Amino acid sequence: MKQLLPNWLLRYQRADLTKDLVASIIMTVLLVPQNLAYAMLAGLPPQVGLYAAMLPLLAYAWWGTSATLAIGPVAVASLMTAASLSGLAAPGSSQYLVLAAGLALLSGAFLLIAGRLRMGFLAHFLSHSVLSGFASGAAVLIGVSQLKHLLGIDIPSGQGLETLYHVVAASGGVNPFTLGISVVSILLLLLGKSHLAIVLTRAGITPSKADLLARLTPVAVVLVATVCAALGQWNLHYGVAIVGTVPAGMPGWTSPVAALAHWRELALGAFLIALVGFIQSVSVAQAMALRRNQKIDPDRELTGLGAANVASALTGGYPVFGGLARTAVSFAAGATTQLAGVLSVVIMLLIVTTLTPAFYYMPVAVLSTIIVVAISSLFDWDTFAKAWRYDRADALALAITFWGVLILGVEQGIVLGVGLSLGVLVWRSSRPHMAVVGRVPGTEHFRNVDRHQVETLPGLLALRVDESLFFANISALEDRLVRALAQPAPPKVILLICSAVNRIDSTALDVLTNLQSQLAHHQVALWLSEVKGPVTDRLGPTPLGQRLQGCIFLSTHDAFLAYQHKYQPQPV
Amino acid sequence: MKQLLPNWLLRYQRADLTKDLVASIIMTVLLVPQNLAYAMLAGLPPQVGLYAAMLPLLAYAWWGTSATLAIGPVAVASLMTAASLSGLAAPGSSQYLVLAAGLALLSGAFLLIAGRLRMGFLAHFLSHSVLSGFASGAAVLIGVSQLKHLLGIDIPSGQGLETLYHVVAASGGVNPFTLGISVVSILLLLLGKSHLAIVLTRAGITPSKADLLARLTPVAVVLVATVCAALGQWNLHYGVAIVGTVPAGMPGWTSPVAALAHWRELALGAFLIALVGFIQSVSVAQAMALRRNQKIDPDRELTGLGAANVASALTGGYPVFGGLARTAVSFAAGATTQLAGVLSVVIMLLIVTTLTPAFYYMPVAVLSTIIVVAISSLFDWDTFAKAWRYDRADALALAITFWGVLILGVEQGIVLGVGLSLGVLVWRSSRPHMAVVGRVPGTEHFRNVDRHQVETLPGLLALRVDESLFFANISALEDRLVRALAQPAPPKVILLICSAVNRIDSTALDVLTNLQSQLAHHQVALWLSEVKGPVTDRLGPTPLGQRLQGCIFLSTHDAFLAYQHKYQPQPV
Repeated sequence: MKQLLPNWLLRYQRADLTKDLVASIIMTVLLVPQNLAYAMLAGLPPQVGLYAAMLPLLAYAWWGTSATLAIGPVAVASLMTAASLSGLAAPGSSQYLVLAAGLALLSGAFLLIAGRLRMGFLAHFLSHSVLSGFASGAAVLIGVSQLKHLLGIDIPSGQGLETLYHVVAASGGVNPFTLGISVVSILLLLLGKSHLAIVLTRAGITPSKADLLARLTPVAVVLVATVCAALGQWNLHYGVAIVGTVPAGMPGWTSPVAALAHWRELALGAFLIALVGFIQSVSVAQAMALRRNQKIDPDRELTGLGAANVASALTGGYPVFGGLARTAVSFAAGATTQLAGVLSVVIMLLIVTTLTPAFYYMPVAVLSTIIVVAISSLFDWDTFAKAWRYDRADALALAITFWGVLILGVEQGIVLGVGLSLGVLVWRSSRPHMAVVGRVPGTEHFRNVDRHQVETLPGLLALRVDESLFFANISALEDRLVRALAQPAPPKVILLICSAVNRIDSTALDVLTNLQSQLAHHQVALWLSEVKGPVTDRLGPTPLGQRLQGCIFLSTHDAFLAYQHKYQPQPV
Repeated sequence: MKQLLPNWLLRYQRADLTKDLVASIIMTVLLVPQNLAYAMLAGLPPQVGLYAAMLPLLAYAWWGTSATLAIGPVAVASLMTAASLSGLAAPGSSQYLVLAAGLALLSGAFLLIAGRLRMGFLAHFLSHSVLSGFASGAAVLIGVSQLKHLLGIDIPSGQGLETLYHVVAASGGVNPFTLGISVVSILLLLLGKSHLAIVLTRAGITPSKADLLARLTPVAVVLVATVCAALGQWNLHYGVAIVGTVPAGMPGWTSPVAALAHWRELALGAFLIALVGFIQSVSVAQAMALRRNQKIDPDRELTGLGAANVASALTGGYPVFGGLARTAVSFAAGATTQLAGVLSVVIMLLIVTTLTPAFYYMPVAVLSTIIVVAISSLFDWDTFAKAWRYDRADALALAITFWGVLILGVEQGIVLGVGLSLGVLVWRSSRPHMAVVGRVPGTEHFRNVDRHQVETLPGLLALRVDESLFFANISALEDRLVRALAQPAPPKVILLICSAVNRIDSTALDVLTNLQSQLAHHQVALWLSEVKGPVTDRLGPTPLGQRLQGCIFLSTHDAFLAYQHKYQPQPV
């Protein structure tokens, strides 16, 4: 029987409540600037970032398995949203909003289906090298996309490195005041990130509190900048771009029907967002779980993330996932159970319904600096350096994915990364281990002729294949047999020893069927031995099974005896 | 030293010349209607199909390995070209021509690079089921795309099944005369395909000649239709669409620079075209080679096809590959070496420079019927029926790819198919075989505790992993160890027996490094045994290697002795 309430709620202990409440307040406040900024990165109005950090949290708390994974807008999914929708609608337009929700809905659907099919193994679809190359490339693209806000210039929206060209072309129009704000803000954020905690600890504050205070830096910077901008009317006097009116109110219930009319254009993007988002969320959740000695279940994570994305779509949000930065914040804030997330939704609701006028004078450049500083840690040089020393092939895969993202764009880059990861897999699988075997004298044991002193029978090629036969490796077997056939004295019988073959797929069956006719045409018989039960059951009724009747032997020893009996009759 | 001339030319025998000459004439004439029709399918002017069947042939003859593979416009690549370029330029416009050439150039570049990297193993990237589902889906899409020509209606160009909607909406405007031409033409082509050879053989003609004559049906139908259309002025009197003016002359030398400005939009499409085209070409070439007992080399095929596509791009063509229908024609015509292809280029040159006015009155509907009849054999029900009986999972993969192509479109469909093929691979790889082992009493042999009566030592978990460790399977090992740790009495030492580990990739190294710290944190030691030389060499200088110094044992026996010595000292 399925239980109605999630585990963490059933086991909830009163002692955790205060901790969770405090954590939720800190978390929510800390994440507001990030939510606004990531929505901007995705080309959406700022309030969408807040909406996307509400209902999805509840959905994940209900269905997900990680106690600390924080769900909401994340950098990479935001960038990928912008890339998916570019060309389909103008950023910020109402059509763009509908499509963003559609993207979340489709991503959610993909995740839910994958969860239903128990495809959690997809979490290990990409190698660390490819993921690292992708993250670094995305970080650079995100940085470049923010240049226009940081410099206060107006350039046409473009994909990837095209933007750099536009920025250079428009460099005459840099707003020096905006640039100044950006530089000061970045310096403050970097100092807060790297030094504040140390300074505070030295001043006698406990390390965990110092860490939390240091994490407040972005909130403080935004607050100060907003107050200054309001007092100094920076927008009027210096032409500094501000956030402007953010409509107050609850996120509306959005109908996904309008977006679904465009599902064909959105499908590939949604699929890639779901894949990357899932992999990143699981890796964050696993790292956290390992630290606390908890376990997460990738199959149920799929369902949790899928539900979160559907929830996001229904409340006018966009694709959401578990982010490292968000999770680190909630971890540092001391969230013990998912209740912290639930409480933070209540607080976010308060903010969304009453506090949005406070965002009016927030300088856009400051939000951009928050993005830039947050993603600077995504850029990962260490993994490349390590891979370069340990395994050049992995380093190459990393570099190719990185440049692929930069040059081809974020979607093509991830496709390239997936292709690389899987290319390696196919390449490996296409080279199964095969050994020609002979009989260990005086026994019924058969071993590799290259490694052991064994007896072979002239005219009998006994070949052991150490893998299940399927589409990626069957042609290697085909090649091996065709080569045997081309020898000056081809064998009379080819015996395939199937002790390691757990399965023969349709492609392999096709190839084997053709091979058998081909061999028969050249007067060479194909025999099998040590075929496992399930394989025999399937093989039986097929044309190949019919033709091999009488040529399938229980043991290799039996096959050897049959060969001697048939081709080397004892002289009387 | 590399040889300057290809093998087939060095070994050319005079006796083959006449055969090749006759074959080339027959081939060229037979393929003219197909070339025109496929160019139309790709949304290009008809002469482009002829251009694409010239220089690429020479390039392939020089670099390729198959003696009989016929290179030129093929159905699926034509459909994929149309899909890639839809939305980028209006079909038939000069920009569209430039982009089509750009697509060929990029495909060629991908193929050449893959050839250089010896990635011929990609030929087995897709299972037969997925390929069959893709081909059937593409066949349906191609059929649907031709409806407007067959019915003589004018509808907006759309992707995939959208077209069906437009056709139904415009069904009032069907041109009955065009429809009549289509029906008669299809009936004639089908009769020619299925019955003519039999009838001719019964009439006393040799089967091979009868086969060739039967293959002439499309040429005859086009010829008769064109003459009738010209005499009856069908275009003026009945509104029948005709091919119109086809500019005479050699294909111009096209600069790829203009197309390269759009390479980002084209890259994904070009990649998919290269992948699908390569797989199809190799499977056709392999089938032919098997029949003649020749061999083809997939690595060199990549180079040959790459060169052909670059050649196509430089002469204003579009992506070209080896097609089954084309190859069957050249095989039936008796082409012995690549010279037949070379000669056919000369003949095609004559046609392009002098005969194009003859195409003026050719009814477009007749060309469409040639496409429809040619691709009807792509639709493959048998493979599904067979897979359904033999292996439901394969049948499902086939069905999903088929509907994916129909509903999502041809590019998304093939991405889905690749995903499915590889998903299966990842799923398999993510489940490596692992066995807890113990000592066979009185020996230094260690076997699976579940299958043999063996001795184990309390507190020592000896785990044998029967696979190289890499990104797709390392988390299975991690799970296994974390589970061991969670037992009521966790082991003191975990011994990994690496006899089957040929390689540890960077991802696996990362995970192992983390695991080791984690285990150390829980007072569990990680030991390794039977580590192979190359693995030790790489592992040595890494942080994990440093930390494991003294914990790596030559044999499992040594590790057992060390454990006994350390944790079970003999009482004095």
